[in-house]
Amino acid sequence: MTSQLFPPGVQQTLDLVGIFVFALSGGLLAVRKNMDIFGICVLAEATALGGGVMRDLVIGATPVVAFTNLGYFVTPLVAGLVVFFLHPEVERINRSVQTLDALGLGLFCVTGTAKAHDYGLGSVAAVALGMLTAAGGGVIRDVLATETPSLLRWDREIYAVPALVGAALVAILISIGRLSTATASAAALTAFGLRMLALKYGWRAPRAWHRNGSRTSEE
Amino acid sequence: MTSQLFPPGVQQTLDLVGIFVFALSGGLLAVRKNMDIFGICVLAEATALGGGVMRDLVIGATPVVAFTNLGYFVTPLVAGLVVFFLHPEVERINRSVQTLDALGLGLFCVTGTAKAHDYGLGSVAAVALGMLTAAGGGVIRDVLATETPSLLRWDREIYAVPALVGAALVAILISIGRLSTATASAAALTAFGLRMLALKYGWRAPRAWHRNGSRTSEE
Amino acid sequence: MTSQLFPPGVQQTLDLVGIFVFALSGGLLAVRKNMDIFGICVLAEATALGGGVMRDLVIGATPVVAFTNLGYFVTPLVAGLVVFFLHPEVERINRSVQTLDALGLGLFCVTGTAKAHDYGLGSVAAVALGMLTAAGGGVIRDVLATETPSLLRWDREIYAVPALVGAALVAILISIGRLSTATASAAALTAFGLRMLALKYGWRAPRAWHRNGSRTSEE
Repeated sequence: MTSQLFPPGVQQTLDLVGIFVFALSGGLLAVRKNMDIFGICVLAEATALGGGVMRDLVIGATPVVAFTNLGYFVTPLVAGLVVFFLHPEVERINRSVQTLDALGLGLFCVTGTAKAHDYGLGSVAAVALGMLTAAGGGVIRDVLATETPSLLRWDREIYAVPALVGAALVAILISIGRLSTATASAAALTAFGLRMLALKYGWRAPRAWHRNGSRTSEE
Repeated sequence: MTSQLFPPGVQQTLDLVGIFVFALSGGLLAVRKNMDIFGICVLAEATALGGGVMRDLVIGATPVVAFTNLGYFVTPLVAGLVVFFLHPEVERINRSVQTLDALGLGLFCVTGTAKAHDYGLGSVAAVALGMLTAAGGGVIRDVLATETPSLLRWDREIYAVPALVGAALVAILISIGRLSTATASAAALTAFGLRMLALKYGWRAPRAWHRNGSRTSEE
Repeated sequence: MTSQLFPPGVQQTLDLVGIFVFALSGGLLAVRKNMDIFGICVLAEATALGGGVMRDLVIGATPVVAFTNLGYFVTPLVAGLVVFFLHPEVERINRSVQTLDALGLGLFCVTGTAKAHDYGLGSVAAVALGMLTAAGGGVIRDVLATETPSLLRWDREIYAVPALVGAALVAILISIGRLSTATASAAALTAFGLRMLALKYGWRAPRAWHRNGSRTSEE
């Protein structure tokens, strides 16, 4: 199992931190959309666990880990309650939340890619599933809130590219037999760093060429 | 198999009644959204079977039962045709439809929790899957119709809490070894009763605290 | 395996053509919604592979083939890049794209039905999964773009009925033991032809009866 990249306790702690901050972003969107306590908890769960659930379904790892590991399931509920009671404070430290979210992004693209490889998928598919693990929950969050997924919007800082880079590094490390706690951490930190730079400098991905020649933009 | 809670014929009948009324709610939304006969049938199918399909995918019970039991699949089509030809009449008996929907809610949260337990999931996860079975189809219905899921909206009577109570009762009954036809029926009726009370008295779940201090509501 | 309907090289080529044109339709919608290059590629992937992924999940064919066959995964990326650089040209040949899309529809409803049958599903369920394979990706595309799925809209030419006819023909052919490359091709061409006729003559499905008697249309 290459997916056991870190000592068990460390991995579990990192996973729960990532899940917690992903859940915060789901809960905050629910508050903005005027949802009730239950909507907050559902969006927190869906955001935090959705990417991993989709990865596990695709690779056939059932029952999916999000439902067999109690901590994975309870953590988003805690985050939901935190948002319910303290959302103005959580909004105020949004910069810190975004930093933790970037950490979660880095961590999940690495562990998602490694797990997909463990289940026998090829490099390209493993990279895709690493990205799905990291970014899928946010897409589910936005769909449930009937928002255009921010992952797909040109006016948001790039989110997928850092995940892609982190996942690709892991796939390369696996193929050259060099995946270890140290190199996996480096890959996760690379994705994290790219995301932080994107946030700081407002990096965006290009839209389709020649837009001026085409119909008017709808958004 | 604890999920065989009722005599087979009774269970099948109850399942089909629940599926039928869930499908009616999907078909009625499709009519309101001005969809055609095919959209009506698709929304009827998705509403009626979506929760159970998601549960089966998560626990790895494939092929999912909604596609292996012919009655489960055909019943929503019948409901779709009923809505197609008779939707004003169905709207008129909406109060009765809501009562039957509450019965479906009670039944599915109980059977969903029991089935998840049969597949080896722990109590908390089984409760979550019971709720998913009961409420998941309605979320898919609303997403397909590009509506904010009514499950998540604060201005709708609570739907998840009755399901939570019913599912939690089943988990407790399982853990103390007392799940039987009688106790399962009591759990389902408790969920049903709570939902009916919520409808009658307009019970709603609270939104996040201190909303006045935060940004203006968007809806 | 009845799903090996065509010589392997032929089947692979047909699959990739279908995937490519489905991906084009996803990419074009992303451009219209003003998404960036990454949004274009994600919508291309989701449209092209979504139907087959859902089919594989439902029947328990994991890891799903879309992630184990490299060509299936890379083709939508190529289509996404084509749209990114050349979308005005692709829009201009939209009529040809719709023709190819109809070919994909015919092909996927046939192969989807046959694959579901291979996994032990009954005729009705296999037909439903054939339709899901052919039309599911387009629904995911529209949900991700927060549009009402065009499959469900009454003001679009019928898409599901041709898929239904093609899938039903395959189920009948299987049940009478006559499914072969020739008959499967005939079923696919029937679905293709119906879709082309629907486009040419603007065939639409009926909406619910007595609409005048009900509330005003919302769209």
